[in-house]
Amino acid sequence: MPSAQFKDLTLPIENHFRWKVDREKISSFEAGDLFQITKIGWAVHGFTHIDAPKHILPQGSTSSEFALDQLMGFATVIDVSGVDEASPITAEMLENLTSSSVIEERILLKAAWDSRISPTEKAYWQRSPYLTRCAAEWLLDKRPKLVGFDFPQDYPIRGLLENEVPSIETMVTHDLLLRNGIPLLEYLCNMASLNSNRVELIALPLKILDSDGAPIRVIAKDV
Amino acid sequence: MPSAQFKDLTLPIENHFRWKVDREKISSFEAGDLFQITKIGWAVHGFTHIDAPKHILPQGSTSSEFALDQLMGFATVIDVSGVDEASPITAEMLENLTSSSVIEERILLKAAWDSRISPTEKAYWQRSPYLTRCAAEWLLDKRPKLVGFDFPQDYPIRGLLENEVPSIETMVTHDLLLRNGIPLLEYLCNMASLNSNRVELIALPLKILDSDGAPIRVIAKDV
Repeated sequence: MPSAQFKDLTLPIENHFRWKVDREKISSFEAGDLFQITKIGWAVHGFTHIDAPKHILPQGSTSSEFALDQLMGFATVIDVSGVDEASPITAEMLENLTSSSVIEERILLKAAWDSRISPTEKAYWQRSPYLTRCAAEWLLDKRPKLVGFDFPQDYPIRGLLENEVPSIETMVTHDLLLRNGIPLLEYLCNMASLNSNRVELIALPLKILDSDGAPIRVIAKDV
Repeated sequence: MPSAQFKDLTLPIENHFRWKVDREKISSFEAGDLFQITKIGWAVHGFTHIDAPKHILPQGSTSSEFALDQLMGFATVIDVSGVDEASPITAEMLENLTSSSVIEERILLKAAWDSRISPTEKAYWQRSPYLTRCAAEWLLDKRPKLVGFDFPQDYPIRGLLENEVPSIETMVTHDLLLRNGIPLLEYLCNMASLNSNRVELIALPLKILDSDGAPIRVIAKDV
């Protein structure tokens, strides 16, 4: 298995202005312990993670229902990296970018946004391209098993930095995809390292049951 | 990619008498929020996880150094499930069980111990088979990139339940393998679902950097 060809699409879990990470050594050499043991905690929607429908829908399915069949397999990469910052990604763009492609059961949108601005910068969140509602409808129409993004794909995410409460209708991928049972892979990174419009995706979330989401490690390779 | 053939070898992260899981909803529908958001925290050496050498060695390498090349690829499964409970697994046993095998770069010991007693029971921890120091030396001699176990492989782990401080020499896989730079996959489960002595292993830890270990999702399929 040529693991060397896999690229890591995962943000590190470390303190970030959007997400506080509680981290401490509960056993340490300095304290005379035989072992060093780290304890860590954070909200499961921080960093690279997967949303379960329960995140938006009280009766939605949870992380317990994630299946390997969703999480692993071929994915279509739609390269939207030509879009300007702070600009909409429309259904027409997605259609034009895939007109000659077979759409796989999993779809990743690649803006390579982290190649332009680091996710540790506020501008990454405030100046990101975003999806129109029609673009989210276009994605829903493909009935994928999983959709992933390497940029803050819903316009109101920028408002979350200022504690603005979004309207659900403008959280278009949450409202249209997640509400309809399609898990979202959020805050991917390093997608500029992928060159193909078709990849083999492996996305393994932590086994946290009955949750609205889970932290995840995501890797992919060109095929 | 035939994901359906992969078996999940991972324990769920949920409250356990050995490990406290801090879990709360920091946003909830009941409170009138638009989204449910779970926050979770625990020690990275609870449940199925990977140890980095830093766990035992102040100058040891950390989780930052885990490479996909270690974590993914073929693994030899040594089926030690014939051993009695509370009994030693010796170097001779490992040698006899593999005498006709090529040893892959990764080694998994399969006691299928969780098929006999649940990890939620104290007896799982107190009555487990364990490795002799010679058995750990045998494993070290193979210079694997990674070694995994589906039972508490070092005898003194049972004493940790009573807060007994072990001597490092008796923590044989920690003292011989981890100290020599070989990460340990601990507390695997469901290995009874594997039938082959050779598997394709995918072990993806969370991207927690500079740590003594990390929670992990582990899957494997017979080849």
